[in-house]
Amino acid sequence: MAIRGSESRYAWTVVVVVLLAVAAAVGACRTGGGSSTTVAAGGDANAVISERGLTPADVFAAVKTYVPTGQHDEYLIFSSGGHSGQMLVIGVPSMRLLKVIGVFTPEPWQGWGFSNETRDVLAGGDVEGRSITWADTHHPALSETDGEYDRQWAFIHDKAHARVPVVDLRDFEPKQILKNPLALSDHGGTMVTPNTEYIIEGGQYAAPLGWRYSSMEDYEADYRGMVTMWSFDRATGRIDPEKSFALELPPYWQDLCDAGKGVSEGWIYCNSFNTEMALGGIEMGNPPFEAGASQRDMDYLHVIDWRKAAELIAAGRGTEVKGFDVLPIEVAVEEDVLFFIPEPKSPHGVDVSPGGEYMVVSGKLDPHVTVYSHEKITAAIAERKFSGTDGYGIPIIDFDAAVETQIELGLGPLHTQFDDQGYAYTSLFLDTAVARWTLGGDYESLNPDAPWSLVQKIGVHYNVGHILAAEGDTTSPDGDYLVALNKWAVDRFTGVGPLHPQNFQLIDIAGDGEAMQLLYDMPIGIGEPHYAQMIKADKLSPWDVYPEVGWDPIAQALDENKVLAGEERIERDGKKVEIFMTAVRSHFTPERIEIQEGDQVTWHVTNIESAKDATHGLAIPAYNINLSLEPGESTTVEFTAERDGVYSYYCSEFCSALHLEMLGYMLVKPGP
Amino acid sequence: MAIRGSESRYAWTVVVVVLLAVAAAVGACRTGGGSSTTVAAGGDANAVISERGLTPADVFAAVKTYVPTGQHDEYLIFSSGGHSGQMLVIGVPSMRLLKVIGVFTPEPWQGWGFSNETRDVLAGGDVEGRSITWADTHHPALSETDGEYDRQWAFIHDKAHARVPVVDLRDFEPKQILKNPLALSDHGGTMVTPNTEYIIEGGQYAAPLGWRYSSMEDYEADYRGMVTMWSFDRATGRIDPEKSFALELPPYWQDLCDAGKGVSEGWIYCNSFNTEMALGGIEMGNPPFEAGASQRDMDYLHVIDWRKAAELIAAGRGTEVKGFDVLPIEVAVEEDVLFFIPEPKSPHGVDVSPGGEYMVVSGKLDPHVTVYSHEKITAAIAERKFSGTDGYGIPIIDFDAAVETQIELGLGPLHTQFDDQGYAYTSLFLDTAVARWTLGGDYESLNPDAPWSLVQKIGVHYNVGHILAAEGDTTSPDGDYLVALNKWAVDRFTGVGPLHPQNFQLIDIAGDGEAMQLLYDMPIGIGEPHYAQMIKADKLSPWDVYPEVGWDPIAQALDENKVLAGEERIERDGKKVEIFMTAVRSHFTPERIEIQEGDQVTWHVTNIESAKDATHGLAIPAYNINLSLEPGESTTVEFTAERDGVYSYYCSEFCSALHLEMLGYMLVKPGP
Repeated sequence: MAIRGSESRYAWTVVVVVLLAVAAAVGACRTGGGSSTTVAAGGDANAVISERGLTPADVFAAVKTYVPTGQHDEYLIFSSGGHSGQMLVIGVPSMRLLKVIGVFTPEPWQGWGFSNETRDVLAGGDVEGRSITWADTHHPALSETDGEYDRQWAFIHDKAHARVPVVDLRDFEPKQILKNPLALSDHGGTMVTPNTEYIIEGGQYAAPLGWRYSSMEDYEADYRGMVTMWSFDRATGRIDPEKSFALELPPYWQDLCDAGKGVSEGWIYCNSFNTEMALGGIEMGNPPFEAGASQRDMDYLHVIDWRKAAELIAAGRGTEVKGFDVLPIEVAVEEDVLFFIPEPKSPHGVDVSPGGEYMVVSGKLDPHVTVYSHEKITAAIAERKFSGTDGYGIPIIDFDAAVETQIELGLGPLHTQFDDQGYAYTSLFLDTAVARWTLGGDYESLNPDAPWSLVQKIGVHYNVGHILAAEGDTTSPDGDYLVALNKWAVDRFTGVGPLHPQNFQLIDIAGDGEAMQLLYDMPIGIGEPHYAQMIKADKLSPWDVYPEVGWDPIAQALDENKVLAGEERIERDGKKVEIFMTAVRSHFTPERIEIQEGDQVTWHVTNIESAKDATHGLAIPAYNINLSLEPGESTTVEFTAERDGVYSYYCSEFCSALHLEMLGYMLVKPGP
Repeated sequence: MAIRGSESRYAWTVVVVVLLAVAAAVGACRTGGGSSTTVAAGGDANAVISERGLTPADVFAAVKTYVPTGQHDEYLIFSSGGHSGQMLVIGVPSMRLLKVIGVFTPEPWQGWGFSNETRDVLAGGDVEGRSITWADTHHPALSETDGEYDRQWAFIHDKAHARVPVVDLRDFEPKQILKNPLALSDHGGTMVTPNTEYIIEGGQYAAPLGWRYSSMEDYEADYRGMVTMWSFDRATGRIDPEKSFALELPPYWQDLCDAGKGVSEGWIYCNSFNTEMALGGIEMGNPPFEAGASQRDMDYLHVIDWRKAAELIAAGRGTEVKGFDVLPIEVAVEEDVLFFIPEPKSPHGVDVSPGGEYMVVSGKLDPHVTVYSHEKITAAIAERKFSGTDGYGIPIIDFDAAVETQIELGLGPLHTQFDDQGYAYTSLFLDTAVARWTLGGDYESLNPDAPWSLVQKIGVHYNVGHILAAEGDTTSPDGDYLVALNKWAVDRFTGVGPLHPQNFQLIDIAGDGEAMQLLYDMPIGIGEPHYAQMIKADKLSPWDVYPEVGWDPIAQALDENKVLAGEERIERDGKKVEIFMTAVRSHFTPERIEIQEGDQVTWHVTNIESAKDATHGLAIPAYNINLSLEPGESTTVEFTAERDGVYSYYCSEFCSALHLEMLGYMLVKPGP
């Protein structure tokens, strides 16, 4: 954050204005000769404070979150866009929405899904040939090196279809979308292993693996859960399905996962619910799922040795489902890859402490968080301290042998984040609050007076789901800020109809033991974000323009069909017409395209500019095409000219004073 | 704005904190015994100001724009979403994005385009049967009564396909989309007549009316411009194409229009460019459009008597193009409906003063704004003060007879707005500034010292297109706030890749003669908004929930297929399966649906809740369905179960602590 002006000079002018404004209230006051000083061009802030009825806390929040023009935010949030299917990029502390990244849902502003190259990426997410134009995104994950965000990639998943994309943080655009062949739905993704060897995608609602039909009468025998480990190749920037695999799991509903790190690197932890294997059917007089899946006091925390699982797959111990490697339950059990630990009750979050020592589980129907110790878990495994096996033969580690402690926080605990002062933060859905509590054990020196204890709660508005803290999933969280991702806004914002926005609330968690303070309410008027991660903004180094003119952003290389100035042309081969076009302020070349009805058109276009922000669009009416050409970008689109007529293609980004004059005519003559 | 706490008590605590913080700088100061008071729970705002280097202007802006939790914004902006195809709703002064309204582009978060009813609305915008899933939205218009925003409806248009939707401001959702049958592209829309009798949609790039093919060699003979007057029926909340009509215009490129009001009610004004009728063709050695369309010093302001045009259409003087009534140029000329006035040079904005007296035109290649007088125009028409006719026989009103004045403002003037103090504001694209200038004539009493003169400019960042002021298009603008819709952000925000956000800058224009002050930079990370309107928030009264359980939001009436509690069932007739489902926290009824491959499924679902914000989603994987069911909403979706398997349908809005348990299984048995 740049410091503008001198601290002492500023304090001087502020105090003088305050003194002038309230002199009557405070009585006589000598100001050391400063009474002639005024706040230059600043208007009268104190008059505004008074007129608007701002409290001291409001003023603190205002000056804490305001980012003046030309200055930049300190952190960036990469957020799920919920069922918009997209990702959101938000600045902190200003809580301004900087970008909606088109991911699963076609986004015309970005030309996303309208060019050949981007359509191909989206087609990677087809469900057996079915084009899906939405997604239910939940948990984004930034790529990590040694457990720290390394600024290179972002991942997320689609709960509705078990799909995972790869977003390149050089240009903030997706490069790959993959459909999980095993399942239609997922939930426990995406999380990364500490060096992003794998992207973790856990399942949710059990079904026969490979999207087969089976009667629910055969639920226990045929239905299964899973955790998929997607192998990520940094060199290509792509997930390699050939090197990826999944673990077969019982048909409990796996929920969230987290990767071990530090002392627990090599392990992953996933919780689960509906270990009751309730089958619903309220219309048949059965308990509805909400009751049937909430009967037992304990569900199962899944403990998985992913390194050993990968070795077993490499050694050929897996089976194949739809061509995808799957490690069967019996092999996982036999080889000590998979264990359960009881966890209370209908858990929804499992979060690993910064050093990897502890796993914090929130049972959403239990007022405690339950803290497990990795050291105790591995010791229990070594000593075979099992309380039995589940119905699928999976050993259940003795609860008392694995638990470090339980802390009562309040109603509906869901998710936990960490800071740099030995505090953990847990969202409380039913309390609509966030609890701050102290870690103990390896963190006890930070809060020696009261380890493992509740410190403070702060109310939020309303119904908080996930929370996120600055760099809160890394091995070195920053503290500073926490955001509550509230599901309901109710009365927080001006009414915009029966569909209300969500509410991201920014909370100040900085300072040494100071109370948490609410800073900002950010309405989310696009989708219902589930989770997000916050990275220090100066860690990122995105491109301002593409590296060279003629760049293909999907290949991240020069486009073989790039068009440079002077190379513009139209080539014809029978009914095939190939257009090579450039765009520059403020004209397309060519400006006139004369073709025949029925022609098959392949249209290459390159933005030959290299100035920052000199984006051009290419709108082609009636053929459902809008391209976004960032400086240097080259792309291609194909269509069949199936309707004669006069079409004005034009630049859809306001690029210059003569932007409206940036157009051409495509004339499609009637067929013979 | 609610005033919280007592002004004097607050001033007291602020000054004490300031005094404590800067006592050393100001010397001894007696505070009247208040030295033991502290700012409760507020942190130390002055320490933050100092640490962050905020200037007095920054602090003023921060406290002017910050809206504390639970308080509401003062104004709402309804903004174009540019080529996202949507509309944006933004709060002022906080500049928070409250909602992205799905309009032309399917929006899964809102279920927009995923249910039968909403697919039907979108299909109204099909281009001769071609489904178009994007739009280039430009100019929204709020419905008016007596020239004031009446809070009922919002309109906008799609430049790329000449389409117009109707958005209902009770639930902030579109109810109708219409395709203009005459043209593929438009621009001069939407504006409303002062009582919303008509929604104005002017054309842009000329083409043969009715989307015919014609060679550009026949441009002057065959190509045409147009202005369409869409007749709006408040009772049905729909545009009635049968009562709508268009005016045939020469193939100049009509740009923006504005409706007369007050003294000029009954008239509309549209400017135009490319009166040169340049044909482009840079690749053939011709001047590109940007040069060819900028050769003449004057283009033509179109002056249209819409009441008389409507009477002539009613009297059968129109012709039909694709079944749509069109008033031919020759009839318009013969009946004194259409006149031109010269306007300098490549104009981009025409804006009518609050009382309707003046039309302000900005020629984007001329440093002046040109102000026309309606009184002078009508007098010139009455006195036949014509300087000739254009090539299509349209009388050209003598420039000097119609002009009130010209004012030099700066480079690249585009658009003008008005306030309540006799000021006009004009965006200057090339200067990247906004100019404030005084109106004269009927407004001279407000600024008697210097009518018709430039007062101040404020720099913006960067490349400002439209500007908007609070209620700035009504007969009684509010002043208070102005927003510059800047096309480039360049360095204003943290980098998010080569596609940068736009930048809405909020400017304080309140006060009596005080300098304009920049308050806030709002990044727009979704589309490039072209224009927007700002309405006082308390004028609106949107619904919090639907009026009754079982509501069809498109019909705005009870749904004949609504499902109430206890009425849930599955009906089968051969291969036709009809599901009647309810949704309530936290279960669907039924929870199990067993069907056969090939079944044709009609799925009705009603959210039987009436609590504010108790929205449920219904995600049906693999069939590309996500519905959003606001409290009370009833909707229907159809699909063919073409793939056997196990599908878990679930609630895609986090509705309760047991939200994840709100699901059901659809089992599709393999076909025989």
